[in-house]
Amino acid sequence: MRIAELNVTPIAIADPPLLNSNGLHQPYALRTIVELVGEDGISGWGECAGGRRMLDAFEGSRQHVVGRSAFELTRLQLALTGNAPDATQHETLMGRMNPLPAARRVFSGVEVAALHLIGKSLGVPVCDLLGGRVRDRVPFSAYLFYKLAGGGGEVDDARDDEWGEALTPDGVVAQAQAMITRYGFGSVKLKAGAFPPDEEIAAMLVLRNALGPDVPLRIDPNAAWTVDTSVAVALALAETLEYLEDPTPGMAGMGEVHDRLAAEGLRMPLATNMVVTAFDDIPESLRLRAVDVILGDHHYWGGLRAVSHLGTLCHTLGLGLSMHSNSHLGISLLAMTHVAAATPHLTYACDTHYPWQHEADEILVGGKVPIVDGAVVVPSTPGLGIEIDRDALARGRERFERGGIAERDDVSEMQRRVDPAWQHIQPRW
Amino acid sequence: MRIAELNVTPIAIADPPLLNSNGLHQPYALRTIVELVGEDGISGWGECAGGRRMLDAFEGSRQHVVGRSAFELTRLQLALTGNAPDATQHETLMGRMNPLPAARRVFSGVEVAALHLIGKSLGVPVCDLLGGRVRDRVPFSAYLFYKLAGGGGEVDDARDDEWGEALTPDGVVAQAQAMITRYGFGSVKLKAGAFPPDEEIAAMLVLRNALGPDVPLRIDPNAAWTVDTSVAVALALAETLEYLEDPTPGMAGMGEVHDRLAAEGLRMPLATNMVVTAFDDIPESLRLRAVDVILGDHHYWGGLRAVSHLGTLCHTLGLGLSMHSNSHLGISLLAMTHVAAATPHLTYACDTHYPWQHEADEILVGGKVPIVDGAVVVPSTPGLGIEIDRDALARGRERFERGGIAERDDVSEMQRRVDPAWQHIQPRW
Repeated sequence: MRIAELNVTPIAIADPPLLNSNGLHQPYALRTIVELVGEDGISGWGECAGGRRMLDAFEGSRQHVVGRSAFELTRLQLALTGNAPDATQHETLMGRMNPLPAARRVFSGVEVAALHLIGKSLGVPVCDLLGGRVRDRVPFSAYLFYKLAGGGGEVDDARDDEWGEALTPDGVVAQAQAMITRYGFGSVKLKAGAFPPDEEIAAMLVLRNALGPDVPLRIDPNAAWTVDTSVAVALALAETLEYLEDPTPGMAGMGEVHDRLAAEGLRMPLATNMVVTAFDDIPESLRLRAVDVILGDHHYWGGLRAVSHLGTLCHTLGLGLSMHSNSHLGISLLAMTHVAAATPHLTYACDTHYPWQHEADEILVGGKVPIVDGAVVVPSTPGLGIEIDRDALARGRERFERGGIAERDDVSEMQRRVDPAWQHIQPRW
Repeated sequence: MRIAELNVTPIAIADPPLLNSNGLHQPYALRTIVELVGEDGISGWGECAGGRRMLDAFEGSRQHVVGRSAFELTRLQLALTGNAPDATQHETLMGRMNPLPAARRVFSGVEVAALHLIGKSLGVPVCDLLGGRVRDRVPFSAYLFYKLAGGGGEVDDARDDEWGEALTPDGVVAQAQAMITRYGFGSVKLKAGAFPPDEEIAAMLVLRNALGPDVPLRIDPNAAWTVDTSVAVALALAETLEYLEDPTPGMAGMGEVHDRLAAEGLRMPLATNMVVTAFDDIPESLRLRAVDVILGDHHYWGGLRAVSHLGTLCHTLGLGLSMHSNSHLGISLLAMTHVAAATPHLTYACDTHYPWQHEADEILVGGKVPIVDGAVVVPSTPGLGIEIDRDALARGRERFERGGIAERDDVSEMQRRVDPAWQHIQPRW
């Protein structure tokens, strides 16, 4: 099945003012929507990181994609990314344009579209191309953020504020309760690193009290803390956390946190989507005992098959596996759902930003994918189990053209809206 | 695509009197041929270990296989093998009936048949179900054996002796040259452990002289040597070997060989198909630095997808990857070929016993698969790229029923043909 066309559409989607250690989400998040058209006229769709540089990278990939068999995925990957080792330790992987070569992310978007195309052509769901489902529902976690008042988007695209302000422990609890009410999430993660650690510790303790003992809680300051602070927070939340995600910068720092906690007799799992984002990062993470849980992400790791392989690797090495998320739409949510469905060793509910995206910006026919009882039902229809609303896609492109954001930059947004003197400091506390 | 039928055929194939550390090959090798018939009447075929116990295990699996979707492979695997850890360290994995639970081997045979069925139904080669080929020809290695005079089989099934006796270094060289002339192999492995180490060292040195410096050489005594002997052989063959395979029993022994060689300043890669035969064996092998090269085998590891995942794991951990072989026919050869074609990180030519099997025993339409210039061409036709000759299959079954061998037993054969007092001793030297 030859790939006859590669169509790449940059879009912008409204994004609320969410705080993190790198600053503040801009009014729009950027995504790239990938369409592969097979020689039989069937389309497969993928979604990956957005912005101008990704567009350029897709243009550079076109010669390798068009004319190739949709099944020839590993050769395509080698053609795009070469045999060179993956770059390692992406310390600034959030909050700004990803500084790494874009080829692997381009491949990830194309791979999902190719699997969607294959599945549709053959009449089988994507999970069946990955060994078949082992679960019929994929659990996701509530993803709490400190948040300014206001919805995402601007002018005609301004969205209503579905969640309100959350700048205090009580605000965080209210957000958690609203999200659980609406989506039924069974576990909860707080994006931290926005306020001094004592405030965020307090938020977690108040969350524990409010939600009861049965809801697993996680905290992720995106490397905002020193090793000392990371250890202090872990000790303060020893009874509260399911795992501690990326407390401090760098593999060595994570390893030091592990060793210090072990010396205190505390076995707190350390999770990451920052220091291990490629297979080549794994040996050093093992050597330093830096990581207990990998948050896989098919957008980074090289597609759904790579995450499936990562599952075997984590199982083999005794590591936990969950999934990382950036702001995304339904294509990415369903791609995650299919690979999670086919991966036996998925040990934690997956992250997703999806609740933060507004119904008006979804590009799927039928609107947003339902999350019910904290889970997405694994489709049994061919491919990813979605159809694209081309009018909605065109509106997303218009927002991108109009919005004036070429690359993500949470630092500038923080300076623009909160404090002109604000600087990104890592670790801050 | 539902699986409507599971048909399991035990066969026996003529096998010449090949020596190894466990004794002598019997006149017949046993295989199990697996047919899955889809609801549309299309058949997919697999091949795996033979013998009565495997037949019983297949009967026990029938309820889990028939009626299931051919795509639902991971759920089938869990149903057959459970979530229990794989058993580890198979020290007597050759020369006798495999002592481990047969469920994983049953699954492997069914998985290959399911992928063949899916590929035929969808019109794509099996390698395309594994990410697509990265090479068009898969290299195999000549597999030399010390050998008594005579062909395989008995009575009406007695085959001519295509290779002659090989009981001395000169006999081994003559065998290597004949095999290279006939198949064009570019690398050579000697099954050792049959004669005192000095004789086998001499054989390797004579091979090096005869074949020149450009043909990689390997030796595999199947754990016939003590740690001391293993170290002595490695030092004697330091300039001669590509890798040293399973010199001594057990993971700890292999680790000790590694440490002793490292202390001597020798970096000799240690390969195995005995101490690492499942994902769960890997952590201890890393801890002990026992293994540098894994000889994967889809019959042991859980099918083609498992070996594909193993490739990623070996690449990640800096381990080499090749493939192990037992006596087998063309279904297994092509299954190996498809997964090897789709695995970028295949760092050595694969093992195969295939040249030892006689044309008269092949069950493929068209006879034996060609090995040309030491490689098998990766088929582009649907499925594995084979059709089964049902008459030849029936003849294989008759040989099994007639032959009187219920399970492999190289020890008894050695006692019967060579020395009634012979015992299996591991390590012997």
